Amino acid sequence: MVYIEIAGYIAATLTTMSFVPQALQVIKTKDTHSISLAMYIIFVSGVFLWLVYGLLITNLPMILANVVTLFFAGVILYYKMGERKRNRNVTNKGQL
Amino acid sequence: MVYIEIAGYIAATLTTMSFVPQALQVIKTKDTHSISLAMYIIFVSGVFLWLVYGLLITNLPMILANVVTLFFAGVILYYKMGERKRNRNVTNKGQL
Repeated sequence: MVYIEIAGYIAATLTTMSFVPQALQVIKTKDTHSISLAMYIIFVSGVFLWLVYGLLITNLPMILANVVTLFFAGVILYYKMGERKRNRNVTNKGQL
Repeated sequence: MVYIEIAGYIAATLTTMSFVPQALQVIKTKDTHSISLAMYIIFVSGVFLWLVYGLLITNLPMILANVVTLFFAGVILYYKMGERKRNRNVTNKGQL
């Protein structure tokens, strides 16, 4: 029974931390071209609702995991949403 | 109490389905340049372990959600892993 719980904790850690390398890559390269805006809008909304759910049932591991995921997925969404603005700036500079 | 459960189901649906637009975009454009390989290796491993966990505790919604997520995240990982091969082919063609 303890092994099952350990599997659950490892699974939660992996899916939560998986967004860290993507967030770091996006911060470093500012390249979000092949990242889907729809994915991150839906995903961030879903994680936010998971966090609300965790708060409603007062499940601490669920709250913690979703706060962390929300932060890193939020960073990716933030950069993705700034993509068009960055591209416009590049175009404007090119016209100067 | 029912509202809390509904919130949980909506959250699960959103985070599960969020990978669909990314998978479709990758299939359509074959562009995976700004997608992090590390993210999808860690994420797919985590979702696989969530599926194992769901099977061990025989939780049907958890099994279903993770089978769907595993499929779409797996498609993204598959295309990301083929990126280098595709690029090599493009380079080779350029040299002909």
